[in-house]
Amino acid sequence: MATVFGIGVGPGDPELLTLKALRLLRAAPVIAYPAPEQGDSLARSIVAAHLPGGQVEIAIRMPLEVARFPAQAVYDRAADEIAAHLRAGRDVAVLCQGDPFFYGSFMYLFGRLARDWRVEVVPGVSSLMACAAALGAPLVARDDVLTVLPASLPEAALEARLAQSDAAAIMKLGRHFAKLRRVLDRLGLTQQARYVEHASMASQRIVPIADLNDDDVPYFAMVLVHRRGDAWRNP
Amino acid sequence: MATVFGIGVGPGDPELLTLKALRLLRAAPVIAYPAPEQGDSLARSIVAAHLPGGQVEIAIRMPLEVARFPAQAVYDRAADEIAAHLRAGRDVAVLCQGDPFFYGSFMYLFGRLARDWRVEVVPGVSSLMACAAALGAPLVARDDVLTVLPASLPEAALEARLAQSDAAAIMKLGRHFAKLRRVLDRLGLTQQARYVEHASMASQRIVPIADLNDDDVPYFAMVLVHRRGDAWRNP
Repeated sequence: MATVFGIGVGPGDPELLTLKALRLLRAAPVIAYPAPEQGDSLARSIVAAHLPGGQVEIAIRMPLEVARFPAQAVYDRAADEIAAHLRAGRDVAVLCQGDPFFYGSFMYLFGRLARDWRVEVVPGVSSLMACAAALGAPLVARDDVLTVLPASLPEAALEARLAQSDAAAIMKLGRHFAKLRRVLDRLGLTQQARYVEHASMASQRIVPIADLNDDDVPYFAMVLVHRRGDAWRNP
Repeated sequence: MATVFGIGVGPGDPELLTLKALRLLRAAPVIAYPAPEQGDSLARSIVAAHLPGGQVEIAIRMPLEVARFPAQAVYDRAADEIAAHLRAGRDVAVLCQGDPFFYGSFMYLFGRLARDWRVEVVPGVSSLMACAAALGAPLVARDDVLTVLPASLPEAALEARLAQSDAAAIMKLGRHFAKLRRVLDRLGLTQQARYVEHASMASQRIVPIADLNDDDVPYFAMVLVHRRGDAWRNP
């Protein structure tokens, strides 16, 4: 039976691809990847140098702003197209930026395909770990609780969660950054918060939060907060 | 100036090593890795097939049960030994199972060396993502909040955190499993909880929680809980 591989290709640096991802994506007769409505796929660009050529490619093109129904239609159609290859006995490698099961759009294909087909997920280096590495800031040690928060949460929810976190990562900032800044200020956490965008990519940028322009924050940006500062110095 | 590389070697499957980790660990004249008081280092065993031979090796041997002071002494001595190589101009690659900054012991070396030396962290595939992949269970989608909990937390704290989590990963189970089982039962979450040990290793084992023996749970075991079940089926 043919297999769908959900392959984490890592946070952006092509060298953060795993050996397993490399082997499987080169061997697959068909590759699929998320892509914007027009233009290049970030997931594909990460592995472009490794592609052997001659593979069938399925670009899953998603409008940037979609209502609920059209997104479903896009994944329905992509799942149908992938299933057609599987029925013909061809494995399909789906390229996923970061890790497939960590806020990845792969799970929408997984939800559509896993009942009828063999699906194998290859975990990848997540942006969470790439951001901590870029900032030189340990995420969690010992008994720390880590809370991962999408910045799209309502302001009150974001504040309530951050108020009780030892360590927190606030992801997918983009247009939500001004809201997060207000919350950090109210909680007195701005000094313990560190910002990075496009971690591990050529465009990686680390900026003190005080110097950031609210309107200049991309979607692939993250803030890490650690209440205890440098607690890891003494085990 | 010589560099300390903190290299994530991934969760256990040697194929989940990144290209960057592979390049750096082969090039380093000195490698260091955590190890038990006696016997083999897990981090070293993950990369053993790739080692070129002829490297100086520093095994950082830690007694399984240590009071606070001796652990500090072990890291102090290891940092001194690493610093001696750096002073002589030799890069040192520290091998870290999973990711160096995600509950990794590397951060204790980082705390000792980062003020005086160049330290670069190479993020790795974390057990968090490897467990989700092994279980075929997406961790988080859309606006989900993810809470990562060390099982060593007091029972009341574990219960309070789990009660308000959309999605949670409870890590480092070992002898804390019976406590977690009680908490899951009280919260009515046992049905939504999934268990895996040694994810991605040859010894990987997935067991229904009802069939698990409390005394038979290793340290490298994790439970994932997701309140919403299969919410990812419809984006």
